[in-house]
Amino acid sequence: MIAIIASFTVPEDKAEAFEAIAGELVAATNANEPGVKLYTLARDKKDPTQYRMMELYEDQAAVDTHMASDWFKAAGPKLGGVLDGRPKIEQFTVVA
Amino acid sequence: MIAIIASFTVPEDKAEAFEAIAGELVAATNANEPGVKLYTLARDKKDPTQYRMMELYEDQAAVDTHMASDWFKAAGPKLGGVLDGRPKIEQFTVVA
Repeated sequence: MIAIIASFTVPEDKAEAFEAIAGELVAATNANEPGVKLYTLARDKKDPTQYRMMELYEDQAAVDTHMASDWFKAAGPKLGGVLDGRPKIEQFTVVA
Repeated sequence: MIAIIASFTVPEDKAEAFEAIAGELVAATNANEPGVKLYTLARDKKDPTQYRMMELYEDQAAVDTHMASDWFKAAGPKLGGVLDGRPKIEQFTVVA
């Protein structure tokens, strides 16, 4: 299984817009992608400008399917308008 | 729901020992704590010294129960012997 943690820095005045866009992506992903075992957005308790998308995929094919999805492609440009800098994407292999 | 991401730096010669200790903690947590919705260990694909424990809890009570568990308390000192520095613990509120 593959884990991805995407880290976003969002100015506080853009938080609502960001959560709406990212929320749509979460809903569409969870509704349409059986290969995705987890796709959830969380906000840092100490630093409200920090968000993480926690993602788990059955395999690389599930990751590829996600990245090719209409909802993922649609979210990119919209997210670009509310972020402070590019997201940091870290990819992991689940070991336990 | 509450998310926690714990980040560990593990020298490569300690990886096997770390995965054994952390693996036991993952197994005991998943077997005994219904309030824990996710508890999984993953290793960075690019930097093999980096591990993340991705954790999801129903609520703060589930977090407290976990931290008070025998298996969590037992793992702490053992992990201390195989880590490079202290783990970084980040706590989040799930928003989507």
